[in-house]
Amino acid sequence: MTAGAIGPAPPFGYIAARMSLITPVILVGGSGKRLWPLSRESMPKQFVPLLGKQSTFQQTLMRVADRGLFGKPVIATNDAYRFMAEQQAKEIGAEIDIVIEPERRDSGPAMAAAAVYARTLQAKAVLAMASDHMVIGDEEFRSACRDGMAAVERGGIVTFGIPPTEPKTDYGYIRPGGEQIGPVQKVTAFVEKPNAQTALRYIAEGLFWNASYFLFAPEVLLSEMARFEPAMAAAAEEAVAKARKTGSTVFLDADAFKKAPAKSIDYAVMERTDKCWVIPAKFRWSDLGTWDALLDVGNADSEGNVTEGPVEIDHVRNSYVRSDGPLTAVIGVEDVVVVAMNDAMLVGHRNNLPRLKDVVQRMTDGKHRAATEHVVMHRPWGSYQDIDRGERFRAKRLTVNPKGKLSLQSHNRRAEHWVVVKGTAEVTLDGKIMTLHENESIYIPMGGIHRLANPGSEPLEVVEVQTGDYLEEDDIVRYEDIYARV
Amino acid sequence: MTAGAIGPAPPFGYIAARMSLITPVILVGGSGKRLWPLSRESMPKQFVPLLGKQSTFQQTLMRVADRGLFGKPVIATNDAYRFMAEQQAKEIGAEIDIVIEPERRDSGPAMAAAAVYARTLQAKAVLAMASDHMVIGDEEFRSACRDGMAAVERGGIVTFGIPPTEPKTDYGYIRPGGEQIGPVQKVTAFVEKPNAQTALRYIAEGLFWNASYFLFAPEVLLSEMARFEPAMAAAAEEAVAKARKTGSTVFLDADAFKKAPAKSIDYAVMERTDKCWVIPAKFRWSDLGTWDALLDVGNADSEGNVTEGPVEIDHVRNSYVRSDGPLTAVIGVEDVVVVAMNDAMLVGHRNNLPRLKDVVQRMTDGKHRAATEHVVMHRPWGSYQDIDRGERFRAKRLTVNPKGKLSLQSHNRRAEHWVVVKGTAEVTLDGKIMTLHENESIYIPMGGIHRLANPGSEPLEVVEVQTGDYLEEDDIVRYEDIYARV
Repeated sequence: MTAGAIGPAPPFGYIAARMSLITPVILVGGSGKRLWPLSRESMPKQFVPLLGKQSTFQQTLMRVADRGLFGKPVIATNDAYRFMAEQQAKEIGAEIDIVIEPERRDSGPAMAAAAVYARTLQAKAVLAMASDHMVIGDEEFRSACRDGMAAVERGGIVTFGIPPTEPKTDYGYIRPGGEQIGPVQKVTAFVEKPNAQTALRYIAEGLFWNASYFLFAPEVLLSEMARFEPAMAAAAEEAVAKARKTGSTVFLDADAFKKAPAKSIDYAVMERTDKCWVIPAKFRWSDLGTWDALLDVGNADSEGNVTEGPVEIDHVRNSYVRSDGPLTAVIGVEDVVVVAMNDAMLVGHRNNLPRLKDVVQRMTDGKHRAATEHVVMHRPWGSYQDIDRGERFRAKRLTVNPKGKLSLQSHNRRAEHWVVVKGTAEVTLDGKIMTLHENESIYIPMGGIHRLANPGSEPLEVVEVQTGDYLEEDDIVRYEDIYARV
Repeated sequence: MTAGAIGPAPPFGYIAARMSLITPVILVGGSGKRLWPLSRESMPKQFVPLLGKQSTFQQTLMRVADRGLFGKPVIATNDAYRFMAEQQAKEIGAEIDIVIEPERRDSGPAMAAAAVYARTLQAKAVLAMASDHMVIGDEEFRSACRDGMAAVERGGIVTFGIPPTEPKTDYGYIRPGGEQIGPVQKVTAFVEKPNAQTALRYIAEGLFWNASYFLFAPEVLLSEMARFEPAMAAAAEEAVAKARKTGSTVFLDADAFKKAPAKSIDYAVMERTDKCWVIPAKFRWSDLGTWDALLDVGNADSEGNVTEGPVEIDHVRNSYVRSDGPLTAVIGVEDVVVVAMNDAMLVGHRNNLPRLKDVVQRMTDGKHRAATEHVVMHRPWGSYQDIDRGERFRAKRLTVNPKGKLSLQSHNRRAEHWVVVKGTAEVTLDGKIMTLHENESIYIPMGGIHRLANPGSEPLEVVEVQTGDYLEEDDIVRYEDIYARV
């Protein structure tokens, strides 16, 4: 590692002028097993309101909302999550760009493509960050970004070092040393997940946890990647060059993208480059990696319990008890996590929570719907949830967003009864368009070509009762769709 | 205690001739807190299928179904539970009489009234028994009844003594001694719930648990009661004499019944009479007093776990894990009971389960609906369950039994949409009667006088969507009701 790679510090005014040009690149992926049942594949962790009313994705967007410091965020995600990202951004009034990865290939290719895309926006710096972490101390977070820019200006790649609070064996560590630019220290090594003894030593030696936040000029990351992973860099360039763009969504070219080796950005670049710097984080951070983290960050009572929702505890200690629906009684236990939802529940000893991932996998293999799907299923036009099911019928509640519009469709094996219970519906049936108000209903016969839309400015709610001998989602013929799902 | 109260043994043929004349009196009461959430006030323990597909009430009826030994059972209960008792008896094809207590006054008055009623049936013996216990060994149970009749024939009151398996402090004990008639032993004392040390001594001394089963000639119980509790005996006589009878249901006279002091039969008579005998039980018995009992009687796996329903366990030992709906994952715990339902759940350490009753009371005080009400609410005509609720709507699934008929009614503040999803409905609306088949629907406007009935021989299922500004059960005007609820 040579100090020569970094030029002399430019004058402060220069840094200040470029400050507004940090483009946040927010990585949205993950399968959501570790925080099951609140988080599931159909709606993973980052979209779930784990702490307070906003999801961590929304909290992440709000953390970078200061337009004096940050540009418009770029969301790097896949097709399955794009509508949810759009909707959640809209809910909090955040504008975003979305870069769609055609397939999951770990964080390296995703970050490379995002960097290429950010370069096209003429971003001077990219802040790569997770969407599913908790940060307490948004001002300290921004301050770390400002401090870090001094090293970015000098060609560095800056990461946030989290001061360890315990000898974690499931994080990588960062060893600082040598040069400093203000509070920013040169990184001498990224080290892999240690065993417990080594972790203790690392803490004694002043290493940081690697939270995988990176701040860099896009051209710096890309040139380092071209050095270490030329195929990855080339694939990213090509995937962006050949991308299809719709509105603010960029669909990376699938053929190009799949040429990128599937590797994490840490492994592809960070552990190999000599340009890394670290800024010690003054904010509080958690990757919310297990339910235990929610107990750590919650407001515990005098017995060490964090509770949320309709729960009644009795002789309980050091436990996290949460209900998102069912009335939940917990009696006489210690050090447990209890999470109750109407269709799924978890009871786990805090020491055994890392087992949850495997347990959810087993339930997924066992074809249990609730292992991967939430009761509420999100769609581009809004959401639906099953409210009842019988032998030859199924009832759902549909929530259609303002201006939302389901596809023009028909079903071969079911009829549908719709009752509007909130808002105003525009119903198309066999070419005829009608308006239905609250307490009005309509019958959609089997084979009828129909569409439901919300022309209003408040959400539309419809109770749908389906009858027929086959009632699954795949009995659908789509004729037209404003979300390009035909 | 004098042996003189018992006459010489009659010849065996005489006993055999009277054997068919044991009238079971099954006490159906209880608030259902100890096995919450499966058991709740709206449908307590005895009506819930705790073990297998039948409720303990049904299992109790089947235990006394041998018409060579037992007469038609008399159910002593209150108005809230009578339709459920009728329905569950019907499900298993059991005929029953029902004696309705106008209010709860403990077991003494209830048993006295049942004895008076049984005397009107010319029953030669009454077997008073609980409806919410588990008995394994129906043949041993009947054999105990047969053996006990020898003492009944000689004017005795016979109870079943349960051989203790542990020094329980929440049961009363029975001390046998002296005379014997075959396996039946004279009781020298009923003793109150002991402390743990005394309980151990009782076991060493050969005492039995008192399960409160009593076999007696009605006139014997009544004459003993007239001796010790003359007001109770007189009140019971008057309550039956002035009772109103509808079909096979006897409504005890309320004014008369309330004159009876509220005392348990043990306290009112059994602990004071010198006519008690005990027959050691050869059947396995549990009062299913806490969830722990279900672990004791279940088929445990090699780790000591009993599981039921969609549950996934991992590193779990000596635990009872049951789901009646939600997908349930339990990880890394020992000696716990987990019971999951869609609207309520319990996690409790086995040592602390006696706390459940208080916890349920706290939740009841906190006005949590699920503390006392099941999702499925039973009515004389069938049942309903809430399937969804919003600001100005509520959706239910109604299940109407064959030939069941809701009251002719109207609502002031809601309209209803009905969709028939199974069976055939006869709908009355403002004087007009219509027949609706599966996949047909009708709109009941606010104020419309309507009735739903099932003219068919299979259950009718209707999805009902209510809309309006007030959607509670008490917005109802009843004009006519075949179940006398007007």
